[in-house]
Amino acid sequence: MTLIKPQTLKGFRDYLPGPMLAREALVETARQVYRSYGYSPIDTPALEYSEILLGKGGDESDKQLFRFKDQGDRDVAMRFDLTVPFARFAAEHLNEIGVPFKRYHIGTVWRAEKPQRGRYREFMQCDFDTIGTDSAASDIETLFVIHDLIERIGFTKFTVRVNHRQLLNGLLDVIGLGDKSARVLRALDKLGKVGRDAVAAEMQEAAGATAEQAARVLDFAALNGDPATVLNGVEALLGGNERGMAGVTLLRDLFAAAERAGLPRERIALDVSIARGLDYYTGTIYETFLGDLPQIGSICSGGRYDNLAALFTNQPLPGVGASLGLDRLLAAMEELKLLSGEQTPAPVLVVQFDESRVAEYLRIGRVLRAAGLGTEVFPQARPLKKQLQYADRKGFRAALIAGEREFAEGVWQVKDLRAQSQQTVAEDALVATIAALVRQ
Amino acid sequence: MTLIKPQTLKGFRDYLPGPMLAREALVETARQVYRSYGYSPIDTPALEYSEILLGKGGDESDKQLFRFKDQGDRDVAMRFDLTVPFARFAAEHLNEIGVPFKRYHIGTVWRAEKPQRGRYREFMQCDFDTIGTDSAASDIETLFVIHDLIERIGFTKFTVRVNHRQLLNGLLDVIGLGDKSARVLRALDKLGKVGRDAVAAEMQEAAGATAEQAARVLDFAALNGDPATVLNGVEALLGGNERGMAGVTLLRDLFAAAERAGLPRERIALDVSIARGLDYYTGTIYETFLGDLPQIGSICSGGRYDNLAALFTNQPLPGVGASLGLDRLLAAMEELKLLSGEQTPAPVLVVQFDESRVAEYLRIGRVLRAAGLGTEVFPQARPLKKQLQYADRKGFRAALIAGEREFAEGVWQVKDLRAQSQQTVAEDALVATIAALVRQ
Repeated sequence: MTLIKPQTLKGFRDYLPGPMLAREALVETARQVYRSYGYSPIDTPALEYSEILLGKGGDESDKQLFRFKDQGDRDVAMRFDLTVPFARFAAEHLNEIGVPFKRYHIGTVWRAEKPQRGRYREFMQCDFDTIGTDSAASDIETLFVIHDLIERIGFTKFTVRVNHRQLLNGLLDVIGLGDKSARVLRALDKLGKVGRDAVAAEMQEAAGATAEQAARVLDFAALNGDPATVLNGVEALLGGNERGMAGVTLLRDLFAAAERAGLPRERIALDVSIARGLDYYTGTIYETFLGDLPQIGSICSGGRYDNLAALFTNQPLPGVGASLGLDRLLAAMEELKLLSGEQTPAPVLVVQFDESRVAEYLRIGRVLRAAGLGTEVFPQARPLKKQLQYADRKGFRAALIAGEREFAEGVWQVKDLRAQSQQTVAEDALVATIAALVRQ
Repeated sequence: MTLIKPQTLKGFRDYLPGPMLAREALVETARQVYRSYGYSPIDTPALEYSEILLGKGGDESDKQLFRFKDQGDRDVAMRFDLTVPFARFAAEHLNEIGVPFKRYHIGTVWRAEKPQRGRYREFMQCDFDTIGTDSAASDIETLFVIHDLIERIGFTKFTVRVNHRQLLNGLLDVIGLGDKSARVLRALDKLGKVGRDAVAAEMQEAAGATAEQAARVLDFAALNGDPATVLNGVEALLGGNERGMAGVTLLRDLFAAAERAGLPRERIALDVSIARGLDYYTGTIYETFLGDLPQIGSICSGGRYDNLAALFTNQPLPGVGASLGLDRLLAAMEELKLLSGEQTPAPVLVVQFDESRVAEYLRIGRVLRAAGLGTEVFPQARPLKKQLQYADRKGFRAALIAGEREFAEGVWQVKDLRAQSQQTVAEDALVATIAALVRQ
């Protein structure tokens, strides 16, 4: 018989145990943090009617849809993000869920992008949002969630950069560029890449700004330092503009609340230059950078939007939320050597030394598990050396060995696989000994 | 602007917070139990080359594939189970993973079945398997995993029914029906539904058995009682047949090991009549029934197979495993009223009583979360009554309330939402008070 070649599709990948253990740990941390703030989980189908998804992410996104006719000749497509399905979901279930509504959604999405290093056609998103309220409390809470999430993942050096879209919009109103904000923003978004002069030139060419107007915008974008100082600077530039001042007030409340709640000051920054896309966000904006690897880009981003589901319902649903960049974060953790490299979720391996004693090996596994100690029993009585090689390769912490002598005496040999030391332990002291070893 | 109708596809469904919290709890329990036995997580893509999936589940399964041409004109399809992708995975990564290899895989699969009550075109599977060994230890361990999983989910009354395919095959050899086993099995599989006489008739018509041969098979299938007695009865019928006796020996070891490891005797039964499909399983077979709802069918099923990935590799990969029937189990738990009905993952709601104090409400939320107490802060200063209605609707356990007087005195009002009682608590006693309340 001819074998079928076992291969994944171009742009797709399998997760082997090592990377999958790392991914599960991240997802679990996100779940715990989201839940601790009262965000509830939801899920939506992988497939939607194409009309639900089309036109929501622009032309590029439409081209990248995995779209087909199903058995009932329905025009269907695989979701390319979790935001559009959430908009559909919120409109469809509004009466059941009520507002305010806080949800998280951790799920796979698909985009037929050109495959390139580190970019896949299938990846997970990890979103949380509060909808149905425009209260500043939700903006502040979103910052707290991002902070606590990155801290719980294990980072100590990171910065959540916050901005508010209405600061710049207010300024543009004041200086008479209010109707050209999209073009001005598009130019400003390139500041980090191309520098001040090139941005000033683009603002004049593409947005019809005067040199003085461009300079005012760039002066604004150059404001930096501690949030209170920057906000005073912004206030001075705004000349009392109402929408701009609403943003200033919100950010003052946000930084005060962060201070009051004990978020380390150095982790929260005001950065009036970030814009995060052009059209979607209307208020607060968040980006998060790792202190040891800022160049990988923002690992958790989000913001406030005026209306989630305008295409599906007339009920306005303002909201605020953010999304953890799972793949980017995993890549960063790998580069920073923060992944443990373990291949096993259980720290203890029971060696199968004597096949006739398999019931004893299986029994002791259950004893240890009942005490919360994950334990694998090697399935076959292969040579001891082979089993210990298996243990090393997978990264077990301890091995249990017992043969005729140990069974006669009611003891176990406990091998510390890191220290390569071994001790004889009576069975009634076994749980305590292993627990201490695993905790080390 | 015309609104797009917000709707899910026929046969698909959204998960709202209540059902999703229940599903996440089940998945988390499965994950923990699988991990505690040393099964590692893997994941595979939702999409595969169609040739990987076609012909693996029979004609019916091929018809139910969501299959299409992708942007690169590749013939692709969405996975309809997790077993075929695992076979492809094992063959593709054999050198990296090594054997024995224990994996669990929790993921979504798609089948374009005719939608009917309780059947969806998208559902989750929850599989665990040990491959690369034919050791009886893995068969026994599979039983332990099933038992511990159902127990950890919260059931006390359930039965794992075990059988071994070679008992019956051995008998068929002995009585001269060895070459007709598929037809005999197909008839026998209907025993529970159509009764002894109809099965005997089908064996004679479809499998060409004599009346006496059919009677011998049905006598065998009627053996019941405690495992030791049944196995003695089987041994007597087998007349020393080697393959049959290998099954008898394995089951004797299995029941002895279960007894030794302390699995309650009434939860493990030998049922020589179960066959679990016709062709796939070759050794041990497992089915699991709830004591209070046996009619819903097996909620966790599996068995041993000779070779997982014969279509993809020449390396033989024997294995044994099982799958938790997540949707069936959720339906059973709903019917048995075992789902809590909670709509919130956080037990505590901080009422926003005074908008100017929002930083205090957000701060106390972080204090409680740091102590492991999930806490939602209501995002707006709506009337107290409305916020308490929200708390009741979502199923919060406790509400925290504070206004001017409380802030002046450094205290919080703690409302027990179940008992509808309220007490004043100093902030430094707050964590202990809430923790005690939530544990109740």
